Amino acid sequence: MLNIGIIGAGRIGKVHTQSIVNYVRTAKVVAIADPFLPDETVEWAKGLGIASISKDYLDIINDPAIDIVLICSSSDTHSRISLEAIAAGKHVFCEKPIDLDVGRINAVLDALKAKPELKFTVGFNRRFDHNFRAVRRAVESGKIGKVELVKVTSRDPAPPSAQYAASSGGIFMDMTIHDFDMVRYLSGEEVESVFVQPAVLVDPAIGEAGDFDSAVITLKLKSGALAVIDNSRRCAYGYDQRAEVFGSEGAAICGNDGASTAQVWNTNGTTGEKPLYFFLERYMQAFATEVTEFIEAVVNDTEVPVNAEAGLAAVLIAIAATESAKTGKVVKV
Amino acid sequence: MLNIGIIGAGRIGKVHTQSIVNYVRTAKVVAIADPFLPDETVEWAKGLGIASISKDYLDIINDPAIDIVLICSSSDTHSRISLEAIAAGKHVFCEKPIDLDVGRINAVLDALKAKPELKFTVGFNRRFDHNFRAVRRAVESGKIGKVELVKVTSRDPAPPSAQYAASSGGIFMDMTIHDFDMVRYLSGEEVESVFVQPAVLVDPAIGEAGDFDSAVITLKLKSGALAVIDNSRRCAYGYDQRAEVFGSEGAAICGNDGASTAQVWNTNGTTGEKPLYFFLERYMQAFATEVTEFIEAVVNDTEVPVNAEAGLAAVLIAIAATESAKTGKVVKV
Amino acid sequence: MLNIGIIGAGRIGKVHTQSIVNYVRTAKVVAIADPFLPDETVEWAKGLGIASISKDYLDIINDPAIDIVLICSSSDTHSRISLEAIAAGKHVFCEKPIDLDVGRINAVLDALKAKPELKFTVGFNRRFDHNFRAVRRAVESGKIGKVELVKVTSRDPAPPSAQYAASSGGIFMDMTIHDFDMVRYLSGEEVESVFVQPAVLVDPAIGEAGDFDSAVITLKLKSGALAVIDNSRRCAYGYDQRAEVFGSEGAAICGNDGASTAQVWNTNGTTGEKPLYFFLERYMQAFATEVTEFIEAVVNDTEVPVNAEAGLAAVLIAIAATESAKTGKVVKV
Amino acid sequence: MLNIGIIGAGRIGKVHTQSIVNYVRTAKVVAIADPFLPDETVEWAKGLGIASISKDYLDIINDPAIDIVLICSSSDTHSRISLEAIAAGKHVFCEKPIDLDVGRINAVLDALKAKPELKFTVGFNRRFDHNFRAVRRAVESGKIGKVELVKVTSRDPAPPSAQYAASSGGIFMDMTIHDFDMVRYLSGEEVESVFVQPAVLVDPAIGEAGDFDSAVITLKLKSGALAVIDNSRRCAYGYDQRAEVFGSEGAAICGNDGASTAQVWNTNGTTGEKPLYFFLERYMQAFATEVTEFIEAVVNDTEVPVNAEAGLAAVLIAIAATESAKTGKVVKV
Repeated sequence: MLNIGIIGAGRIGKVHTQSIVNYVRTAKVVAIADPFLPDETVEWAKGLGIASISKDYLDIINDPAIDIVLICSSSDTHSRISLEAIAAGKHVFCEKPIDLDVGRINAVLDALKAKPELKFTVGFNRRFDHNFRAVRRAVESGKIGKVELVKVTSRDPAPPSAQYAASSGGIFMDMTIHDFDMVRYLSGEEVESVFVQPAVLVDPAIGEAGDFDSAVITLKLKSGALAVIDNSRRCAYGYDQRAEVFGSEGAAICGNDGASTAQVWNTNGTTGEKPLYFFLERYMQAFATEVTEFIEAVVNDTEVPVNAEAGLAAVLIAIAATESAKTGKVVKV
Repeated sequence: MLNIGIIGAGRIGKVHTQSIVNYVRTAKVVAIADPFLPDETVEWAKGLGIASISKDYLDIINDPAIDIVLICSSSDTHSRISLEAIAAGKHVFCEKPIDLDVGRINAVLDALKAKPELKFTVGFNRRFDHNFRAVRRAVESGKIGKVELVKVTSRDPAPPSAQYAASSGGIFMDMTIHDFDMVRYLSGEEVESVFVQPAVLVDPAIGEAGDFDSAVITLKLKSGALAVIDNSRRCAYGYDQRAEVFGSEGAAICGNDGASTAQVWNTNGTTGEKPLYFFLERYMQAFATEVTEFIEAVVNDTEVPVNAEAGLAAVLIAIAATESAKTGKVVKV
Repeated sequence: MLNIGIIGAGRIGKVHTQSIVNYVRTAKVVAIADPFLPDETVEWAKGLGIASISKDYLDIINDPAIDIVLICSSSDTHSRISLEAIAAGKHVFCEKPIDLDVGRINAVLDALKAKPELKFTVGFNRRFDHNFRAVRRAVESGKIGKVELVKVTSRDPAPPSAQYAASSGGIFMDMTIHDFDMVRYLSGEEVESVFVQPAVLVDPAIGEAGDFDSAVITLKLKSGALAVIDNSRRCAYGYDQRAEVFGSEGAAICGNDGASTAQVWNTNGTTGEKPLYFFLERYMQAFATEVTEFIEAVVNDTEVPVNAEAGLAAVLIAIAATESAKTGKVVKV
Repeated sequence: MLNIGIIGAGRIGKVHTQSIVNYVRTAKVVAIADPFLPDETVEWAKGLGIASISKDYLDIINDPAIDIVLICSSSDTHSRISLEAIAAGKHVFCEKPIDLDVGRINAVLDALKAKPELKFTVGFNRRFDHNFRAVRRAVESGKIGKVELVKVTSRDPAPPSAQYAASSGGIFMDMTIHDFDMVRYLSGEEVESVFVQPAVLVDPAIGEAGDFDSAVITLKLKSGALAVIDNSRRCAYGYDQRAEVFGSEGAAICGNDGASTAQVWNTNGTTGEKPLYFFLERYMQAFATEVTEFIEAVVNDTEVPVNAEAGLAAVLIAIAATESAKTGKVVKV
């Protein structure tokens, strides 16, 4: 039985904790730390039988009984805490992004190279979604031949505040980064160059803050294949997360999940459910799978499903995309 | 080039005439007859270049230059005109039903036996619908194994008048007869017995006229397989015409056609088109195919797609169904 | 915090236990009993922190600290243990059927009348399925007008042994009982009469054992509306569980769940996922919801989602259906 | 009754002729001209009752009895024959493109300005497709709010020869031109700039001939909205023609047409039809509608559905796209 410490008890920290409690039998959450720790969080943690509840994440880093650390704290602390956890000999599950700065990501990679016995993963939860996985399996099976085009549609239900947009590293680092990883995942390829056609169509304040809320992003892959992502920060009908891989012998396509398969047929037409509202609804099962598969990788000493290099690769594409959006030119990754 | 005479210039007579003009190059409509013949019908027929336009159908029967007769007159004249046309040595396309009376249908079958050189077909247009044909092909291909259950949903957009219902021979002879033929077509089997659970749910006047407007009909096929039909005379969202064949290795299923594949996704959900409104919309192409395939069978002296026996078989099932609806019992066909 | 005892640690007992552990915070599984109790079950129960693990269910019935009993034992023990649990003052979640015998079900109902403070529910899990619930909500919302026809398709992936079929009370009591409840649930109505067209199409041994493996069942509801169920004990493509309610202003329809929304488009056509394999896959979330909602009803002293009368009603229809299958006649419920 | 002359009796000339014969009652095809005129074409034309059959298109231009000319000849003759027909006072239906050269298109526009009584249309047949029209209607209805993104997927079943590719003006002028028009049609907006990421993934010979066979094209519209087109010259599953318009309040989306709605459900999954094979199949009805609506516009003296300016606009975008593909830069239209 391995011991797990959770750093960060916000929304995603709680989701992961609950997943481990529900689905993992080979490891146990023994500690949680969060600088804010409102009473209800303390009560929630106690209810789950978590022994150590602290405001100081170093209580977890420094606890020799803890084997695995989940870093669910604010993004700007990810790389620093990763380094500390690695130094302390912990396996690390780090929420995305590892860092916005390539140097600091490389520092994490270097630290990992020095401790090959440690497992490290970055939380690209969409790779664990049943729909995207089914598309990837179809690609891998050879059913669609050689990959020629990857298409990703990714639209959030509602925009963040302009303030958040400004501090998040921008839409490409904050939102599209998942789609960049999805292109790599679905194609099994590296990205060579990127061109962005950005726009501010949803909230002018986001534009004033120097960011964009809409974009079409074209990517060229190393093999010569193409990819295209379309993003919007606001989608009236919910969270729109679709993908398509087109190849020499066919295509693999996935749609959204709705709350049910029910339809009403009447004079208005044939009406089905909207897509599930947002990432917690759509990816609930994916969050559970990503954590359980990481823990399995630790327990069985097998390869992690998403390694640190994937975390770096997506950030490098996001940096290139940000530059393309500014310059209006194709940028090499 | 064969010459065709059309008897009856109502809705369906016009549909067939237009189909022949548009799609058939090996035969020509040279005459049309209808006792009413309003001016606009005369003008329409002239516009199509039809040489002979008459109020007396005998002008067609007695014209030795005419090879093929399409009987699109009122139902109660079908068997009589069929007999006259056969006697005159014409190939006959007869709209359904041949007759409501088995004796008179048998008279037609006897007349045909005496003239094996003549082609005779009955207008079960749905057999020519692309959706039902695709289901039948799947069944024939063996993809679903041995047939175990045939399901047919058949709902009209709006009920007929109670007066029509009373004079039509009843719902089973007027409406379900198409579905009985569909069960035979999709299964490739004969019906052994029938049980009807009828209801008057749409228009009480139909019930007062001694008919029903809703029904669930269960059939047992000769092989032991089952079939079930559900009917309604009123369907808020249009003409609902679906079928399913379930077999030992799978199922073949078809849905409705809509005006387009377009969907609107918004806060109301994901909304597609209604089914096409009624039989002229849904079966327009099927009407053309049924006429052109019959003419091809005449031209090439090959088997007709729907023979007279099929016309008899459906009527026999309808008679049994009518009795079951009255007695509440299973009735052998 | 209420204490729960689980009687029966077979497949469904384990499913419910796990659901409570995962999702219920207001009650706790403190005891489990099963006459067989293999080592792995003991280990599994210990792993979940269940304090009392016994071969004798009376250890649960007689434990005054236990508030709620889940009866997941073999069907022939349901009514007896229900009575014992009620006598001991426990709230009872009883798997379906309460009993095959109406007298014994009535005994349970009588016992409950004498203790109105106790909650009792019967495990019709499909009422908690997201698809059927969405259809029911559409019906309740008035979107489809007055109910005229309920259609239920229910096909198991693989037949039981003929031996099981013989001892199960027959297909209508064992399998169709869920569909009878579904007709009541979706329509909100009582069943007046039933006609069954049964068949043995899957396994002759089932027929030799006196049971059927296929059937079309027609029901007349008290309002005059109709319902139809089609069943098969073997479905090549998995567990086929669909429903449709047709009304005066439209229809509400639900399909199956697949493992994903992914499709492969190639020269074979456009191919999506099969339905989920069987009830554990399809109804996993429904099982969790049914248990959590029952426990909520106990905790909050509100109405249970499926009451004992529903358990009786479905059995009464199953008895009538069994008679109809034997006699070939319509049978009043 | 207006008289029509058809110039060019290739595939598309024949399609239009047949559509007029089948569906148009207010005009008549009286002449056809084609420099090749094989015997079977002569026979076909005679069979349709076309009086004048000639190898010289000037027989049509110079015939004062002819009111309307359909230019279905090879692309490099379109503008010249248009000018001649306009000079002769004919209404003109010109297949796309009017010309590859902007100067020559402008010459046609100038000639039309001098004869405002003449109707001129360019054959962007996809605007008459039921699916795209339904999407456009949804956009116009306001159901999806303000347009933010237009997506067009357009894939041909099989690539042309490299020789054809080289002489066609390139993929953007030959194939994508339809998609450029579709972006204008669906959005109701003008294009401001274009960026192309081209690739040669299907046939290296096409690349050696200086053309591309795959591309992702990003467009910026005058309003600031975005558009994206993905093209391939080869699609294993047929002709893939889909569109989506995303707006502030929702999205309107259309898919392909298949030969039927039938599906086979078996152990392989749930398999539906492929998209229809190519443009003749998919757009057969659209071709008929475009010709009949143009003739109606002439007969009723109303606005043509696609004017000459639309023909110019699409060519201007294609020119910009061609330059972007060469330079790798965003190009203003």
